[in-house]
Amino acid sequence: MSLTLARFADLDDLENVEAALGSFFADRIERSARHGDAYRNLWVAARDASAGGKKIRPALVIATHRALRGENTHAAIDVASAFELLHSAFLLHDDVIDGDLIRRGRPNLAGARLIEAVDRGVPAGQAAAWGQASAILAGDLLIHAAQLLVARISGPEGRRRALLDLLDDCVFVTAAGELADVAYASQIEPAALAEVLAMSQSKTASYTFEGPLAAGAILAGAAPEIVSGLREFGRTIGTAFQLRDDLLGVFGEEHETGKSAVSDLRNRKLTPLMVVARSTDACGRLDSLLGADPFDEAAATAVRELLVDCGARSSIEGLIAAQVRRAVEVIDLSPFPVSLRVPLRKIIIEATDRLG
Amino acid sequence: MSLTLARFADLDDLENVEAALGSFFADRIERSARHGDAYRNLWVAARDASAGGKKIRPALVIATHRALRGENTHAAIDVASAFELLHSAFLLHDDVIDGDLIRRGRPNLAGARLIEAVDRGVPAGQAAAWGQASAILAGDLLIHAAQLLVARISGPEGRRRALLDLLDDCVFVTAAGELADVAYASQIEPAALAEVLAMSQSKTASYTFEGPLAAGAILAGAAPEIVSGLREFGRTIGTAFQLRDDLLGVFGEEHETGKSAVSDLRNRKLTPLMVVARSTDACGRLDSLLGADPFDEAAATAVRELLVDCGARSSIEGLIAAQVRRAVEVIDLSPFPVSLRVPLRKIIIEATDRLG
Repeated sequence: MSLTLARFADLDDLENVEAALGSFFADRIERSARHGDAYRNLWVAARDASAGGKKIRPALVIATHRALRGENTHAAIDVASAFELLHSAFLLHDDVIDGDLIRRGRPNLAGARLIEAVDRGVPAGQAAAWGQASAILAGDLLIHAAQLLVARISGPEGRRRALLDLLDDCVFVTAAGELADVAYASQIEPAALAEVLAMSQSKTASYTFEGPLAAGAILAGAAPEIVSGLREFGRTIGTAFQLRDDLLGVFGEEHETGKSAVSDLRNRKLTPLMVVARSTDACGRLDSLLGADPFDEAAATAVRELLVDCGARSSIEGLIAAQVRRAVEVIDLSPFPVSLRVPLRKIIIEATDRLG
Repeated sequence: MSLTLARFADLDDLENVEAALGSFFADRIERSARHGDAYRNLWVAARDASAGGKKIRPALVIATHRALRGENTHAAIDVASAFELLHSAFLLHDDVIDGDLIRRGRPNLAGARLIEAVDRGVPAGQAAAWGQASAILAGDLLIHAAQLLVARISGPEGRRRALLDLLDDCVFVTAAGELADVAYASQIEPAALAEVLAMSQSKTASYTFEGPLAAGAILAGAAPEIVSGLREFGRTIGTAFQLRDDLLGVFGEEHETGKSAVSDLRNRKLTPLMVVARSTDACGRLDSLLGADPFDEAAATAVRELLVDCGARSSIEGLIAAQVRRAVEVIDLSPFPVSLRVPLRKIIIEATDRLG
């Protein structure tokens, strides 16, 4: 997707977020050296795992804070950085939970640690355990660091508490979504469309949209109705964003999305798209196509055609459109100033853009 | 070990900690129900994983706060609870890292989730992944919750910041110790006695003794020299405590320690005791005894005799005695009031008591 930061956040502010994250990691790396090379290497790897990325969450914090004429720039940068660290932590633990060693086509933290250990002659099983332990600990450290950044911001006590409560809510809801994802994927629990949509909203929309938008507003000292309006807007557009992302994972062009259009299918990722397809007559044929071994580009093409023919793709487009309408409605019904309405409309477009 | 809470903390205060933890979990369990049964079950399991235990860390927070005439009882209970939640989180992730499904002779959180899933017909591999995912997420939630309790305490801003910094330091150092433990155990890094001692201090002494003792003092508004004296005392006595615990894990009576006196040997747990033994002529014989299959009580008895004969056990007793002398010295050299010296001397005895 093309959620370009520059379109709704000031580039200087985002550079400040990068700088804040850079100095956070520099400090940790320096301190970690006292505890041996392995720990220092872990912090370097954690920094690298957090680098790059689209910085959607920081951009939303900063853009909302600015749009509401907030003057708490320093705190906004810290809170924006906190959401980015939280995101890195969730990705690290999500990969451990899924047993993934690759992210964005490259070894992730666990994969890189594993390779490094094997190169040093460590047996494969121990090297894998070492990679996994490293990723668990790195995630723990970043969850902790995210909250520390928020807990340390200065300013009115009520504002700090509201931000802590918001972050707490994001962590609580995201963990619920992650757990549900595992439960449905491993068929610990059966899942219909409503449950999978709720899971997707919990796992992604909460800490990617709802939390950052509300945090920016709280930092700007906005009225409670503005904060609650932004939370609903965030949940709604966040769900649409995730649905679009799922479609792009199957139908997107790799050179545009930057990610494989085969791997979600190969891994049988449980998305609303697949749940809808399974509820149609195409279910049996879908299963046999997904079972192809090897699951290559030809197999993926056949699945894509089936997902279009059985109406699943257009159902999801319909769901996205409904979420977009609801998001527009929330903008219209909430007491948002014009300065906020404009970026929110841009966010709708960026988050759900067909081209991705 | 017999680190009996009642001996250095007021029983009413400890009941208040239990009550605070109880209401924390009750609130989370209630909120989690909105996200489905699996999430509610996770919170119930997290509560059960945190129940029982010796509550050493809360007792140290509360006892120090009282001994220094602190009047911040409510905050002390919250911070004491935070250290207990942090402990639970570390145990959960430690078990995932070690691949353990049993703790204190019963299935741990991951083990219990696995069994429950198998009972419901989930294939063993998926059930194991489900148990592991549950334990990772439960640990994440408790790490987060621990810090939230500290971040939310009321009182002077400087005091809250000092507590946040202290907690940050404990998490940072404990993760370093945990990583080193994995590195040494899987021979990612070679380890001599000094490194294994430092690892043991980082992994346990920091958040079990140093952190809680210093937190109690900060909450009581103690002078910086008292806080720093308590930190050194905590690191020292915490190391002695861990060395005693390692000895009890091998030489203790199961009916007194409540834990197996065979499993540490069977799992070849890397402790200073074993590192010392390996540095002697007994190394070859030790390896062959530890390799016995099955590793039964007779094999354990032979290892114990060898650990005595090669002088490893008495070396460790010597190290414990040296740490105790140093801890006494710290008490003597620090500007502690008499009201603090008395419980600290009791802590030395409780933490290093031969009978355990």
